[in-house]
Amino acid sequence: MVEGPGTVRPGGRTARTRAAVMRAVIDELTEHGYRGTTVERVAARAGISKTTIYRRWRSLDGLLADVMAELAQQRIPVPDAGDLGSDLRALARSVVASVRDPAISAAFASIVAAAVQDPAARDVLSRFLAVRVAAMTTIIDRAARRGELPPGTDAAAVIETLTALIYYRLFIAGDPPGQDVADGAAAIAAAAARAGALARKPRSGDGLRTRPGSPRRA
Amino acid sequence: MVEGPGTVRPGGRTARTRAAVMRAVIDELTEHGYRGTTVERVAARAGISKTTIYRRWRSLDGLLADVMAELAQQRIPVPDAGDLGSDLRALARSVVASVRDPAISAAFASIVAAAVQDPAARDVLSRFLAVRVAAMTTIIDRAARRGELPPGTDAAAVIETLTALIYYRLFIAGDPPGQDVADGAAAIAAAAARAGALARKPRSGDGLRTRPGSPRRA
Repeated sequence: MVEGPGTVRPGGRTARTRAAVMRAVIDELTEHGYRGTTVERVAARAGISKTTIYRRWRSLDGLLADVMAELAQQRIPVPDAGDLGSDLRALARSVVASVRDPAISAAFASIVAAAVQDPAARDVLSRFLAVRVAAMTTIIDRAARRGELPPGTDAAAVIETLTALIYYRLFIAGDPPGQDVADGAAAIAAAAARAGALARKPRSGDGLRTRPGSPRRA
Repeated sequence: MVEGPGTVRPGGRTARTRAAVMRAVIDELTEHGYRGTTVERVAARAGISKTTIYRRWRSLDGLLADVMAELAQQRIPVPDAGDLGSDLRALARSVVASVRDPAISAAFASIVAAAVQDPAARDVLSRFLAVRVAAMTTIIDRAARRGELPPGTDAAAVIETLTALIYYRLFIAGDPPGQDVADGAAAIAAAAARAGALARKPRSGDGLRTRPGSPRRA
């Protein structure tokens, strides 16, 4: 979960500053990519001082993680249609729409591309994914309570499976995924969950959700 | 499938040249990444002329695609244990071992990272994936003949599902995946296939396997 001064959201000037910084980060990532985005450029673009950014977010990667966490929370509503298949389908379609959103898609792709080789970018992306997965496990918990899933189903693993299949198509296989990819990913995740292939088990190192901090850029 | 002069394999000097070029490509990708790899550097490293490379492979991306196709074919044996679960598990473990192989992992990651944002790199990667998927559909066809899978199961989609889950963990979530990730990916793909969630259907644009050529670098 995200924490620290960056997530406190008082109204007024602070909220406006925060919104300006968030927008500046997205725009810088879109124009210059992960490697070309700096605190200096973000500060100039948002019309604030670098000191303000460092005081609130400590580092560029802290800021990026906060921006990604905000995107993760803002853009995907939690579906609740009353059955697992429909809910996962609605979620998958939202994920596709979100990663293809022209306002953020280039910024997002720049972080994914960097994450393949750069531990700091990977950490930013992991936090984004963790927030999104945590927000969506409700779908699985509800389905489990309705008796649609075997006991011990790993809610996070179901959501990650769906996400993984969409991200793979978008970022690695390189198809811009449409509704068919979303529906396919939802069907695979639902079938695997119903069959008990996504049961909770002790994991030696649960990288996605508890990985300790990686090297940061200042 | 890969074709063209680069895949003809006569013995003797031609075969030695080919091996030297393949090795030079991997080493250049490892050291300089996709963006830093050029025909000039590969030729110098392999001790041949740029003309030889252009004559055989036409372009750097043609050469990269051929290297990737060779890697795809060389490094993964097709398992045949007599049941779908075991075969997919063996395949998934081979995929993990292959992408983590220190001799090629950095070169491979450089292409995946580039593919997120660069259509030419994505095309190279798609060809690699197409070769690998095609080589492994035998596993699914055999399982279908044994009656383990519903009629109409899309063999390629089963293999892609398994691959997607591993690549996501490795390249996007950023865990170096171990045997647990391999076994989990195999279990999900098997369960989804058995449940009929991976049935063949008409696809509007089958991007992974029939995508037309993207812009190339010369």
